[in-house]
Amino acid sequence: MKNYKFLLELEVRDYECDIQGIVNNAVYLNYLEHSRHKFLNKLGLNFSSFVKNKINFVVIKIEIDYKFPLKSGDKFFVGLSCEKISPLRLKFLQDIFCIQNAKPKMFVNAKIIVTAMDENGKLLKKNNIFDEI
Amino acid sequence: MKNYKFLLELEVRDYECDIQGIVNNAVYLNYLEHSRHKFLNKLGLNFSSFVKNKINFVVIKIEIDYKFPLKSGDKFFVGLSCEKISPLRLKFLQDIFCIQNAKPKMFVNAKIIVTAMDENGKLLKKNNIFDEI
Amino acid sequence: MKNYKFLLELEVRDYECDIQGIVNNAVYLNYLEHSRHKFLNKLGLNFSSFVKNKINFVVIKIEIDYKFPLKSGDKFFVGLSCEKISPLRLKFLQDIFCIQNAKPKMFVNAKIIVTAMDENGKLLKKNNIFDEI
Amino acid sequence: MKNYKFLLELEVRDYECDIQGIVNNAVYLNYLEHSRHKFLNKLGLNFSSFVKNKINFVVIKIEIDYKFPLKSGDKFFVGLSCEKISPLRLKFLQDIFCIQNAKPKMFVNAKIIVTAMDENGKLLKKNNIFDEI
Repeated sequence: MKNYKFLLELEVRDYECDIQGIVNNAVYLNYLEHSRHKFLNKLGLNFSSFVKNKINFVVIKIEIDYKFPLKSGDKFFVGLSCEKISPLRLKFLQDIFCIQNAKPKMFVNAKIIVTAMDENGKLLKKNNIFDEI
Repeated sequence: MKNYKFLLELEVRDYECDIQGIVNNAVYLNYLEHSRHKFLNKLGLNFSSFVKNKINFVVIKIEIDYKFPLKSGDKFFVGLSCEKISPLRLKFLQDIFCIQNAKPKMFVNAKIIVTAMDENGKLLKKNNIFDEI
Repeated sequence: MKNYKFLLELEVRDYECDIQGIVNNAVYLNYLEHSRHKFLNKLGLNFSSFVKNKINFVVIKIEIDYKFPLKSGDKFFVGLSCEKISPLRLKFLQDIFCIQNAKPKMFVNAKIIVTAMDENGKLLKKNNIFDEI
Repeated sequence: MKNYKFLLELEVRDYECDIQGIVNNAVYLNYLEHSRHKFLNKLGLNFSSFVKNKINFVVIKIEIDYKFPLKSGDKFFVGLSCEKISPLRLKFLQDIFCIQNAKPKMFVNAKIIVTAMDENGKLLKKNNIFDEI
């Protein structure tokens, strides 16, 4: 298993599954966002406090490989790594995997790039916002 | 404006916006999926009928550039093109844009690859499923 | 058909349906909220503008009868009536129905009570906020 | 604190909050459904297995009092009681509360009536389906 900066265990909820009986493709972005925000918490940071201070973290690019679909009741992990690729851009590598036969099996593989904007959607001028991450 | 195979007009609903007052990054995948399914309808095909016949259309890869965030009340278009990149793989190019000052302004740019599986998540053997699309 | 103050036509989107192939019970609240906000628009009012002015419309009570489930592709109407039941409480009666054989068939019947709060969750002191509705 | 049949601890996720910074009114129905399904699990039953056997549990009535809004990061409990009010109707009483100053504070109070239908939306003929609950 890779060496993640942060690992979160979650479980599929039935309302997240669609007619096909699998987790809808959009819901994985909820899982990924939630694990990024929990990672912030672990660092002592808080998404909604940033919003109150007029600092918005905005996703600007995602690339996701859906290898296997999660289903009702599946327990899974979101593993997270991140690096600063410019003063105002963070790149997250996020894997969603289940443990099967005592081994991690990769279900989803994601790259997410996040930037910081003010409340008007302009890139922040002060560029030390990601220094703590 | 590009020459799309299909164009759908939609409007942001307030419950789709998050604390930051912008459409949440996951919701765009709902918009994109809905416009693909409406495109199927236009061809006389129907997502839920396929499901009843044990044929699942599953997203296996997405790449999305979020250029500008949609906000409460925004009206927008989803433009769609698609091509068969293998017997069992369809590649959709989908743009989300608003009309501003009589010109289209690109908000989101997406590539989505979809395949067809049976109800057990195995790739379909019969590979003429996308012939009509 | 009842004499509604406002009527909105909508269509079920596939991602709103759950494993059972029917619209998930929570999604109807999205439909109802969206039609209330479109009703505000018709009156020249705007939910997100109120939020910017630190006035939050908050649902405090709902009663919903689910008579028949909506399914993939269904087109339906949300009919809305409302009355002020106190200076700071609006009661909405909202019906969701489909047209079948040229007659409206009731699918969902809802009573929703909404109040107005400041950003700290305190009831507004100025109680003329609903005068325009 | 009341004597619940089942208690589930959950946490607000940021994508569940709307422009007002509070959990959207529809999302509470997700919480309530998820806790009912986890309660079934505790009894050795499984919502998605029922669906595979063409038995759908369908919500037919809800009454919800929203007393205080949940916000980003709030941890809360869903307490659940239930009783069979007819061979094919289960009534759930579900409370959502937070622990504040070592005491439970009620945020949401819900009554949910659920019935069992076949895949065509007809009430089940065999009426022992809820005997195990």
